[in-house]
Order: sequence, then structure tokens, then C-alpha cells
Amino acid sequence: MSNTGSTASAPDPRGAHAVPRLALTAGDPAGIGPDLLIAMARQHGHAQRVAIADPDVLEARARELGEPLRLIHFDPERPRAITPAHTLEILPVPVATPVVAGTLDPANAEHVLALLATAAAGCLDGTFEAMVTGPVHKGVINRAGIAFSGHTEWLAERAGAPMPVMLLATEGLRVALVTTHLPLRAVPDAISADRLEAVTRVLHHDLQRDFGIADPVIAVCGLNPHAGEDGVLGREEIEIITPTLDRLREAGMRLRGPLPADTAFTPRALHGVDAVLAMYHDQGLPVLKHAGFGSAINVTLGLPFIRTSVDHGTALDLAGTGRAEVGSFQAAERLAETLAARAAARRSTPRA
Amino acid sequence: MSNTGSTASAPDPRGAHAVPRLALTAGDPAGIGPDLLIAMARQHGHAQRVAIADPDVLEARARELGEPLRLIHFDPERPRAITPAHTLEILPVPVATPVVAGTLDPANAEHVLALLATAAAGCLDGTFEAMVTGPVHKGVINRAGIAFSGHTEWLAERAGAPMPVMLLATEGLRVALVTTHLPLRAVPDAISADRLEAVTRVLHHDLQRDFGIADPVIAVCGLNPHAGEDGVLGREEIEIITPTLDRLREAGMRLRGPLPADTAFTPRALHGVDAVLAMYHDQGLPVLKHAGFGSAINVTLGLPFIRTSVDHGTALDLAGTGRAEVGSFQAAERLAETLAARAAARRSTPRA
Repeated sequence: MSNTGSTASAPDPRGAHAVPRLALTAGDPAGIGPDLLIAMARQHGHAQRVAIADPDVLEARARELGEPLRLIHFDPERPRAITPAHTLEILPVPVATPVVAGTLDPANAEHVLALLATAAAGCLDGTFEAMVTGPVHKGVINRAGIAFSGHTEWLAERAGAPMPVMLLATEGLRVALVTTHLPLRAVPDAISADRLEAVTRVLHHDLQRDFGIADPVIAVCGLNPHAGEDGVLGREEIEIITPTLDRLREAGMRLRGPLPADTAFTPRALHGVDAVLAMYHDQGLPVLKHAGFGSAINVTLGLPFIRTSVDHGTALDLAGTGRAEVGSFQAAERLAETLAARAAARRSTPRA
Repeated sequence: MSNTGSTASAPDPRGAHAVPRLALTAGDPAGIGPDLLIAMARQHGHAQRVAIADPDVLEARARELGEPLRLIHFDPERPRAITPAHTLEILPVPVATPVVAGTLDPANAEHVLALLATAAAGCLDGTFEAMVTGPVHKGVINRAGIAFSGHTEWLAERAGAPMPVMLLATEGLRVALVTTHLPLRAVPDAISADRLEAVTRVLHHDLQRDFGIADPVIAVCGLNPHAGEDGVLGREEIEIITPTLDRLREAGMRLRGPLPADTAFTPRALHGVDAVLAMYHDQGLPVLKHAGFGSAINVTLGLPFIRTSVDHGTALDLAGTGRAEVGSFQAAERLAETLAARAAARRSTPRA
């Protein structure tokens, strides 16, 4: 690792701000996150790539994989430039205990959260335009005695965001969730009018602001099969969902539904729809990940910064093998670049 | 309509039993069921097609659509022959009150059930090898004061079948359900070890017998997101699902899971899987219908006869317009033919 090296490419001719600076977190060091950072570095991207990781872990994993990798200490004062191939800038966060690829260790749970804290702090103070997160393992963090239900919730708490919304995206399909990581039994009572309204407002707002969709169309699923079939299969649509959607329609939103979930995702029903809002995890994500073919992206809406992520887990059996697929991480990086560019354009264009 | 006509094509040279005789029910006469029968008749198939319907409804709808249609009274004593194009044999079941395409009428609810009763009786006494059902409207039947939760449950009760299993199929994907038409709130308590075992046994048995898969691989979803994530997101996997699957594995079944539903439907996870068993309706069907592109098929397993069906509803706004899509009904007919042929081969091949 070169402590004094600088990136090889010249500063972007469009000016410093045209090159987005991305924080890429390695996730659990025992999982495929380090592999994905290394694989992504094979080709240069369109951003300044700053890995938030333990440099020794990355270098050891690169040797294991037989991949060339040059690490350069990240210096926020250096002019921004696109990071060249086989290179990552690095903001080092040391592990607590040595890492064996594929073997989780609760002793490194604090390290995993320190990666996130470092990236979030850098996004909040403007050092980074966005963070792209590698996979963490909820179970091992909880086994270390730290209550952790996922990136989405943790980052929201860190950033003081009251209503984070999980959005998964792939080519031609975006799915947001009203509830995320709850036992199925707890879902119906969690679907309140307040929660549905708040989530829909965040989704609508961020589709406009972040995704640049002027007047988004959102298809909203019912909670029950066949959206309750006029109350025969459940009354939440009649009592909660329809009145809430009607209120939001009066406020000008273009909302469809509540739709039967098995209708909402047919190609015909998806025509002209910018996002589907599913009531719970397994109503919306199986179809998204089926359609995504390993390159779906997880985006957290409702945060004060841009965060995109892989849509998969740590895949422990693939760590260090060279068989981890980098498609989702690459797609997450591309989306972070796009969202960052849109945010930059927004800041440089004063409102009329 | 010709009362004395006979089918134009000669009896199949392989012998009478090589031509399957299918009962095609029109479903709700106000829906697109009649349109689908007429559209299907445009081309001859590979079966003797016997429409179970009111002939006046079919003829009126054919005029409305400007489609040629010849109806021939069904005579079970006539030798079997492939029904020619633009022709249907008919077993008449009269409506109670005149039909307007697109307008439901509870007065015809008894008629809709009489179609099913006629088809089921004919399947049970060997007149038909299979039934293919057009769409009915649960709501209007219930409004007529008849408790009706779906074809699957109604036919099972009629046939004395203790555990009907709903299977949806499309190219490359089969999805069966442990529970079907329940409010989401009622699902967790309905997932008992007894029910899960019985449904899995029916699915495994019928994949072998009806679909000819010698040693089927079944991927079983968890109930909770991430299949409960080691109990953090629900304990049904630990307490009910895993012990049941382990017992069935000891009995020789090749079962995967319980798997997170958003993993189970990824192309990688589906590799080598003959059917996915989802715990509830909206966990399994959105992905199936997304993938099915309007040509998915509903099959009822666990009945003493073959029943396939369209995977969609009555589409009232399309009835009589010529815009109803016949793909699902055609696919349902083809599957009924295939299953009937396999059943015939089974009957003619004594076991060693």
C-alpha cells in the first residue's frame, strides 16, 4: 500500500464537483464485501472511489483472489479525480481481530458499524456525495450484543431521519416497502394510516427529488390477497389503505390501488408505473429479486444523504473464492453516481 | 346451432382414448369466459372440446365479437374426435336471467356453480379426462348468499378431497401454496405442522404422478422475511417449518429450505427446482404472475380428477370487446391435455 501515492488520472475537466466522491463500505470483513470492492476496482468507474475498510483485509483478500490492487490513502484535500482501475482510495478503519474469509466473528461487529459510522459522518459533512454499502450480517452483530435490524434503520437513527423507506430497484421496476424487517405476524398491526401516509410521502418526494420524476405514478398493493376482495379477505383495505390513498390523491398524488399484489406486478399493470409500494417484505421483494437477476439495488429514501447498497447478503461460502458476483454492487455504484449528479445539478440550479 | 351436426375431423387413428375429452367451463357469463372459449375455438386443438355453458350466451357473444362459431350438441356416445376450428361441442347449462357482457348479476350465481357441478360430475364418472375452467367472480357468488371462496375449495368439497393444493405454473416456474384465500392476519396461525406436511405430500405426490417428475426437488419458503433470520424475525421456521421439513426429508423427499422468499425466486436458487412451495398467496403469486406474462396456469392438485384454469379474473371491462387475451386459457388447455395423456399412459401401463 502506498501512503503517498496519488490517483493517476487528471482532475475531471468539468471541474472538481463533476466527479462524485463515493464512500464504499466493505461490510462484514468475513463476507464477500471485500471481494466486491476488489472486483469493482478491476475497471475504473466514473467516480472517486473511497473504500471504508481495513486496508490489511483488502490486501490479504486481493492476494487470496490473485487480483492486482493498489490502495491510496484518502486525502479529502486532494482535488477530486476519477479513481483509476485496480486502485482504491482508502479511509482505514481497523478490524478488532484477524479475519478469515467465510468465518463470522462477533468480535468484529463494532468494526462493521464503525465502517457505517465513518461513511455516514462523511456524507453528513459533505466529504462524500453518497455511500454505497457492502453486505453486513445482522445475526452476528446481534450475537455481539448490539441490537441491529439493518442498514436502513441504523443509518436513519444515526442521521435523525424519522421515516426511512427501503426501495429496491432493478431495470424497469422499483419496489418500496411500508414495513421492512418484521415477523409476518406483526405486519397487519404495523400498517397504520399514519405510517402508510408518511412512507408514501417520502417515496413520492424522493422519486421527484432524487430520481427526477416530475409527477410519479405509484401503484400501491393491498395488504390482503386480492386486496381484500371487497372485505371478504380482510378489512384493512377498506378501513385504512383506501381512505389514506384517497386523502393523498386529493393532495395531488397519482396513486393506483390498493391493487391485488399478484396483479400489481404483471407487465400490463406495471405499464406507466414509476414505483410499486408493497405493504411488507415478502410481498414485494421476491418479484423484484426474480426480475433483478442479481443486479438489483437497495436504496434508502428519507435520509439526508444518498445511500445505495447491494441487494444481497454476505454470501460467506463465496468469500475469497473469486465466485462472488459484482453485478449488484456495480449497479449500486452507478445509481449512486446518477443520484449524486442529479443532486449536484439541483444545488447549482437556483429555483426560479 | 346445429343439434344434429357431428365433428368434421375423423377419429384419431391412435384410437379413441388418444383424443382427450375436455370440459371447458365458461365461468361467469358476464365476464370474459365466453370470449375466451370463442377465441380458443379459432384454431383446432388436440382434444375434443366440450363447452359447459349456455349456448345462447356463447352465440350472442360470438355475434358481438364478430367471430364465427358453430356449436354441436355433445353426445358422449359419439366416437371421440378432435374438435375442428371455429367449433365447440356443447353441454348446455342455461342461465337464469339474460346476460349483459360486463355486468355481473347475482341471479346467475347458481348457473355459474351448475357449470362447475356439471364438469365435476363428468370428470368423476369418466366422461371427461379433465376440466379447464374459465374465470368466476367470487364476490357476486357471495352476494347471492352462497359461501364461495374459490374453485379450488369448492371442487375439493364436491369431490370429497381432503387437501386440495393450489399450484400456479408458467414456463420454468411452478408455485404451490400452503394457504390460499385467507386474510394476511390469519396466515401465521394457519401454518401448522399438519397442514404443511399434508400440502407437501400432495405436491410431491402429484409432481410425481401428474407431472411425471420421478424425484422432485421442492424449494420451501419460510413464513417470515429472511425465513425468520435465526428467530430474530419470527419463530415459526424454528418451531414448525424446519422440523416438518426434516421429517419429510427423512421420508425421502428432496426439500430445500425454509428459504427466504426473496432468495427462493432468484434464477440461481430456482436452478434444479421443480416447484416452490410458498406459505401464502402474496408470497408466491406476484412473482409467478410477473414471470407468466399473462399465460400462467392454475392447477388444482389433490383432486381425483385433472383441473386446470386461467390464472386471472373475469376482467369485466374486456368482456365482449375482443380485447380479452386468451393466452392463459390456451396454456391451461395444453396442460390439461398433457396431464390427461400422462394419466392415460399410466392406466394403460400396468405396474411391474
